[in-house]
Amino acid sequence: MPELSEVTCMVIVAEALVESRLIEDLHACGARGWTLTPAQGQGPRNRRVSEIEGGSIRVEVLASVDVANQIWQKLEDDYFGDYGVSAWSYPVQVLRTSRYR
Amino acid sequence: MPELSEVTCMVIVAEALVESRLIEDLHACGARGWTLTPAQGQGPRNRRVSEIEGGSIRVEVLASVDVANQIWQKLEDDYFGDYGVSAWSYPVQVLRTSRYR
Amino acid sequence: MPELSEVTCMVIVAEALVESRLIEDLHACGARGWTLTPAQGQGPRNRRVSEIEGGSIRVEVLASVDVANQIWQKLEDDYFGDYGVSAWSYPVQVLRTSRYR
Repeated sequence: MPELSEVTCMVIVAEALVESRLIEDLHACGARGWTLTPAQGQGPRNRRVSEIEGGSIRVEVLASVDVANQIWQKLEDDYFGDYGVSAWSYPVQVLRTSRYR
Repeated sequence: MPELSEVTCMVIVAEALVESRLIEDLHACGARGWTLTPAQGQGPRNRRVSEIEGGSIRVEVLASVDVANQIWQKLEDDYFGDYGVSAWSYPVQVLRTSRYR
Repeated sequence: MPELSEVTCMVIVAEALVESRLIEDLHACGARGWTLTPAQGQGPRNRRVSEIEGGSIRVEVLASVDVANQIWQKLEDDYFGDYGVSAWSYPVQVLRTSRYR
């Protein structure tokens, strides 16, 4: 039986144009890794990001609860008002917690 | 500390050819946003969707429990029998619940 | 109301070069389906997989707890030491549990 521990998985879907800045901000918040996939999205405010404009990115970050809270704060302060950004988080199990703290 | 609230995240993996119809049905069920990524998949019934046929799509929807239940019903009624569709759901935390209700 | 049951969703992010071997190993562990999306990633050890080298893959597997444990064991035995692999798991609800057992 593997010994699993809990960390927070956070998913952020944003316009592709914010990619570099978002990755920098995630690092500044203490995130130590991320997974990025290209995406298309339509948000609750019906702002559809045109594929012509470069589409969207879906970024997944595993982090401690503290780091996740800092990311939430950053998104609220600098992203939600200005960009078509959606985010959600949930607890996940990992094998080697120390990598994410 | 961010004030987070719970909504349901639903993931649907389907043949790319059903994309337009699926998105329409999600809206009709009350979903107000979605994230779409290209994918390849192999389902439990060993039906592998050929890349030549256009591959698969992975659609993520955040919704209230009620809307999620309507999507489940729609998938059961109109998709699972006819298409290579997989779906799963789980609770996630969001910062601005009102956007998803 | 749909009758949902719980299975484990496991996400594995790995260098694209291990794709065939990983899919084989997932099957050998008892997984009956998977969803694959292209990805880029940076892990906690700062090993960024170059896009030039083919990037990364993000593989999602729905499985029973037993199968998930076997996959964790396989990752620990054969992947974590040698490759830039990240993995996490969490419980999800599905409509037709029998497909994943």
